[in-house]
Amino acid sequence: MLINLHDYEAAAEARMEPGAWAYYSSGVGDEVTLRANREAFARIRIRPRMLVDVSTCDLHTTVQGIPVTMPILIAPTAAHCLAHPEGECATALAAGEAGTLMTASTSATRSLEEIATAATGPFWYQLYVDHPLEDLTDRSFSESLVRRAEAAGYRAIVVTVDAPRFGVKEREERAQFEMPEGLSMANYPGDLETEPASLTWNDIAWLRSLTSLPIILKGILTAEDAVLAVEHGVDGIIVSNHGGRQLDCVPASIEALPEVVAAVNGRCEVYMDGGIRRGTDVLMALALGARAVLIGRPVLWGLAVDGADGVRRVLHLLRDELEQAMALSGCSTLASVGAALVKLP
Amino acid sequence: MLINLHDYEAAAEARMEPGAWAYYSSGVGDEVTLRANREAFARIRIRPRMLVDVSTCDLHTTVQGIPVTMPILIAPTAAHCLAHPEGECATALAAGEAGTLMTASTSATRSLEEIATAATGPFWYQLYVDHPLEDLTDRSFSESLVRRAEAAGYRAIVVTVDAPRFGVKEREERAQFEMPEGLSMANYPGDLETEPASLTWNDIAWLRSLTSLPIILKGILTAEDAVLAVEHGVDGIIVSNHGGRQLDCVPASIEALPEVVAAVNGRCEVYMDGGIRRGTDVLMALALGARAVLIGRPVLWGLAVDGADGVRRVLHLLRDELEQAMALSGCSTLASVGAALVKLP
Amino acid sequence: MLINLHDYEAAAEARMEPGAWAYYSSGVGDEVTLRANREAFARIRIRPRMLVDVSTCDLHTTVQGIPVTMPILIAPTAAHCLAHPEGECATALAAGEAGTLMTASTSATRSLEEIATAATGPFWYQLYVDHPLEDLTDRSFSESLVRRAEAAGYRAIVVTVDAPRFGVKEREERAQFEMPEGLSMANYPGDLETEPASLTWNDIAWLRSLTSLPIILKGILTAEDAVLAVEHGVDGIIVSNHGGRQLDCVPASIEALPEVVAAVNGRCEVYMDGGIRRGTDVLMALALGARAVLIGRPVLWGLAVDGADGVRRVLHLLRDELEQAMALSGCSTLASVGAALVKLP
Amino acid sequence: MLINLHDYEAAAEARMEPGAWAYYSSGVGDEVTLRANREAFARIRIRPRMLVDVSTCDLHTTVQGIPVTMPILIAPTAAHCLAHPEGECATALAAGEAGTLMTASTSATRSLEEIATAATGPFWYQLYVDHPLEDLTDRSFSESLVRRAEAAGYRAIVVTVDAPRFGVKEREERAQFEMPEGLSMANYPGDLETEPASLTWNDIAWLRSLTSLPIILKGILTAEDAVLAVEHGVDGIIVSNHGGRQLDCVPASIEALPEVVAAVNGRCEVYMDGGIRRGTDVLMALALGARAVLIGRPVLWGLAVDGADGVRRVLHLLRDELEQAMALSGCSTLASVGAALVKLP
Repeated sequence: MLINLHDYEAAAEARMEPGAWAYYSSGVGDEVTLRANREAFARIRIRPRMLVDVSTCDLHTTVQGIPVTMPILIAPTAAHCLAHPEGECATALAAGEAGTLMTASTSATRSLEEIATAATGPFWYQLYVDHPLEDLTDRSFSESLVRRAEAAGYRAIVVTVDAPRFGVKEREERAQFEMPEGLSMANYPGDLETEPASLTWNDIAWLRSLTSLPIILKGILTAEDAVLAVEHGVDGIIVSNHGGRQLDCVPASIEALPEVVAAVNGRCEVYMDGGIRRGTDVLMALALGARAVLIGRPVLWGLAVDGADGVRRVLHLLRDELEQAMALSGCSTLASVGAALVKLP
Repeated sequence: MLINLHDYEAAAEARMEPGAWAYYSSGVGDEVTLRANREAFARIRIRPRMLVDVSTCDLHTTVQGIPVTMPILIAPTAAHCLAHPEGECATALAAGEAGTLMTASTSATRSLEEIATAATGPFWYQLYVDHPLEDLTDRSFSESLVRRAEAAGYRAIVVTVDAPRFGVKEREERAQFEMPEGLSMANYPGDLETEPASLTWNDIAWLRSLTSLPIILKGILTAEDAVLAVEHGVDGIIVSNHGGRQLDCVPASIEALPEVVAAVNGRCEVYMDGGIRRGTDVLMALALGARAVLIGRPVLWGLAVDGADGVRRVLHLLRDELEQAMALSGCSTLASVGAALVKLP
Repeated sequence: MLINLHDYEAAAEARMEPGAWAYYSSGVGDEVTLRANREAFARIRIRPRMLVDVSTCDLHTTVQGIPVTMPILIAPTAAHCLAHPEGECATALAAGEAGTLMTASTSATRSLEEIATAATGPFWYQLYVDHPLEDLTDRSFSESLVRRAEAAGYRAIVVTVDAPRFGVKEREERAQFEMPEGLSMANYPGDLETEPASLTWNDIAWLRSLTSLPIILKGILTAEDAVLAVEHGVDGIIVSNHGGRQLDCVPASIEALPEVVAAVNGRCEVYMDGGIRRGTDVLMALALGARAVLIGRPVLWGLAVDGADGVRRVLHLLRDELEQAMALSGCSTLASVGAALVKLP
Repeated sequence: MLINLHDYEAAAEARMEPGAWAYYSSGVGDEVTLRANREAFARIRIRPRMLVDVSTCDLHTTVQGIPVTMPILIAPTAAHCLAHPEGECATALAAGEAGTLMTASTSATRSLEEIATAATGPFWYQLYVDHPLEDLTDRSFSESLVRRAEAAGYRAIVVTVDAPRFGVKEREERAQFEMPEGLSMANYPGDLETEPASLTWNDIAWLRSLTSLPIILKGILTAEDAVLAVEHGVDGIIVSNHGGRQLDCVPASIEALPEVVAAVNGRCEVYMDGGIRRGTDVLMALALGARAVLIGRPVLWGLAVDGADGVRRVLHLLRDELEQAMALSGCSTLASVGAALVKLP
């Protein structure tokens, strides 16, 4: 019975090749942060209000001015073809059908143009800034990705800022996972060898000058960086610890959210990802100031179980849980979801 | 050996059909609140006073002016006939024999008139406000229930305010529980199809105008709603999270009790239900300001194990444990059970 | 290998009849306080001081002016003959040999006179104030016990104040424990039927007028009662929850100790029992203001394993652990064990 | 797969004789502090900064003016020959090759001169101050050790101050571990029988007068002692609980570090050991004010698994993890690792 996201997780694990499962599921180090991403929600309490008219609950909102039918977006994750042959194209199809927005990853196994073509709704482009092995300052390939994204109709650039290097996922290493024959990072020319660039705020300024698309920083976890982000003119921040996959022992995303929201103080939109599995998790994040949340692994689970249909079902399950949570906490609109709705531990 | 309520739980589970057990026992979502209802008591400490004359401990009190022999009432729960053929009639018989009061549920499997006839003590009526499928504002059936309750001798209307929709109990879903042939919601005409109404404070005003019976709101968890309840002239509040069955991640009832008591500030009676299994649990709730507690599932366990006798035994066990807890903490009367008796975590 | 008190516990359980073991080991209710008595120590931190001359550590002290070689006394516990045929006489022999003091229980299976004769060191008498079934106010039997204790050379009266009724130990009930043939409460005439009296402060005044022996109240857990105790002229207080056997959910003894010590403010001696198993536990209690600690169950374990030799060994093990803990925390005398030595959670 | 220090622990346990393993791995008492040394790290959160240029991270530092390539040193531990025939000589070889410093223990199974000869980098000498059985004040053997250390090129004297007696490791006792035939405390003449001296601050003054080498106190856990250490002119403090092997229930080293750092206030260098297993652990300690950390048991694990190569590998693994943690938290230099990088529980 697939009636919640945990069910999809178990079903996906049963279907996927163990190495690929390890690649998706593992966290860095001792997985302290991976676990914290879930455990932190169980310590927050929702303070529900009664006797409010919740005969209809309106979940529509906008992100960067783009209308979506719910404050639940698809986070960028790599290599969807590991889960399903249609890969990111199936995800893009499902996202629009579910009335929401997909963020396509630079590490997609379908090209950004293919994804754009398959999409039935709005989409954002997640950018890893790379450099060729021989020149740390060469940003030409990243620039070309931004240009291609603009041309293909992407509506924002989501720059991942927490990955100057990639975290070591030991479960993945022990599983000796290797990308299967025939799967490749489809946005990259076959002969291009790159490494992650150690981005700085200067790169954000450069990117700001490069494109008029909204720029969203993904991976901010502190008030200090949130202030700098605003000062550098970004349009959005995704509070994220990369699904517990970059640096272990950093805060759960939901733990870091309040200080970022307070520091931003309304000057740009703030989103969060990390550990969202239930409608009540979404409600807590919204109450703490997130404009929307993004889900990563659950989308892959839906994809592994049933392709685009699975992704759509996962999105619908979470949407329905959120609507139920809003109704039962006395919130008929997202505007009524405020800080008084939760009690922190 | 059936010497405490946990024993009755185990014995009831062993006797009941698994689907019906799932229906009774499950909570919503990940059951965070269901567990919290129990765990919260284990973090509170009783500060017992010594060398007080406790040769007799007086547990008599009144609720809404009605005398009861102990501050332990029967909470409304659905479908007692799942536990025993006599259903709510057996419960009503046992309640009076045990010197306390039963709250009959709108979702009873015996009609409110049958229950009233069987009762040997005072009884309250729990009202779910429904509306016919075609008209959200039609309150005529609810009005008829109130009139029937008045006519049958019910002494208060307990309005459930936390259920504009019903929570999804996944264990129940997985068990594919369906009400057995022959069991029906006995208060409803066979051809009536209704849905829960999304109640508002206006409905409370309407109800207030409809009946002179005391009105008690069940399901309040915040100080804000408690203040509104008092302002709307209600006579009592039951701090409750519906046994962890409506919205997950809301506070344990005992966690929410202090803020409600403080906000009410003596302007109406405050009760609580949720997780009460021991006399020390009752004592803690009383010390934190509850005038009485209500027990739900334990009554069903008693009923499943031994019908009316089982219910009476459950009530007696809990009464005896409370009396023992009062004696050993230096309280010979309920009036002496005050805030200094407990230390919150 | 019997190298710590936990080892003695396991060995005693292996040797004793299950019912008798249940009688000794069980706590009341859900055993929340029984567990808390141990768990609370693991949350306290010792702040050790270095570079102090600890080539010798002096553990000698006095309790009520009586010299003992260590601040570890024997708590009153019932029915030592369940553990060993010599019963309380073996315990009394071992206590003196180990250089400490035994508290004999009213519920002993050897008479207080036999115990006094067997003793090789000082001893106190623990008094349960009973009344005959027919007269709640008749204190004549208790008075006779005090007179007998005085005559037999007991040096203080330890009045248990937390037992106006006895707690229900469910594990004991399930084991259907009954006192074996031939074992009896040796201080009671065979035809005397009594019940615990619901003591009040007036009884303490009466007792004060009755005897010039020091009066120590056992079972105080709050600052309020500690103040009253001092005002009633008692000579000592044992902070105790009766080994988790009277009222569940009261504080661990070590949790309650600081408020009692602060309230007493040096006006009488304060001791504690409950959960002491390690020298570091004793050190924590001393640092928090206890003049000495008492151990109950560990004495019974020693007795069950090896009679008087086992009791002596248990006392020596704990004494050696305390001396080691003092040395390694920079305390060469008990006077140097102060509040700065510990950090509460 | 040996990809982290936990792997080395498991591999070493599998290879070593159980008694020797118990000797290395056990803690004192109930091992509360042994566990706390690890658990405390999991409650601290790293607050990572983004968009800092971390294309290179510089881990070089100095300790007592001695350059090392990373702030990870080798703590003194006894009897390396239990892990590998080359014993401390293999460790000394590996330390220098890994670019760091070894602290040789007085309880080494190779003489301090042999270790000095084998060393490829700088080395410190850990001193246990002993006295002959017959004369508690005779420091002549300790003086000779200091003179030998000076002559052999040791660069500092690390005085262990938390061992006026040795802690009782019960797992070791139960394993009935005895030093194998042929292994001996190589720094001691065969006929010398000594006992640990109960050091005082006077001994520190004496030592200060004896040598011009830097003096580092190992085993300080309180602000009070840290102040005294500074006042006695020491050059460094190692915050340590002796790997949980001396007094149980003292704070985890990382818990005690902040108060020592605050009390020292820059007047000498502060290091810490205890529970370091991950690069993130090192980063937390540095952020809380440690100039460097020392690792003990992990070195023995590496030695047991693969001699000098294993030690080098353990050091490299931890170094690489630290570099990764610095890069992913926005620290390109050790100077940028400050208090704002962590959040205490």
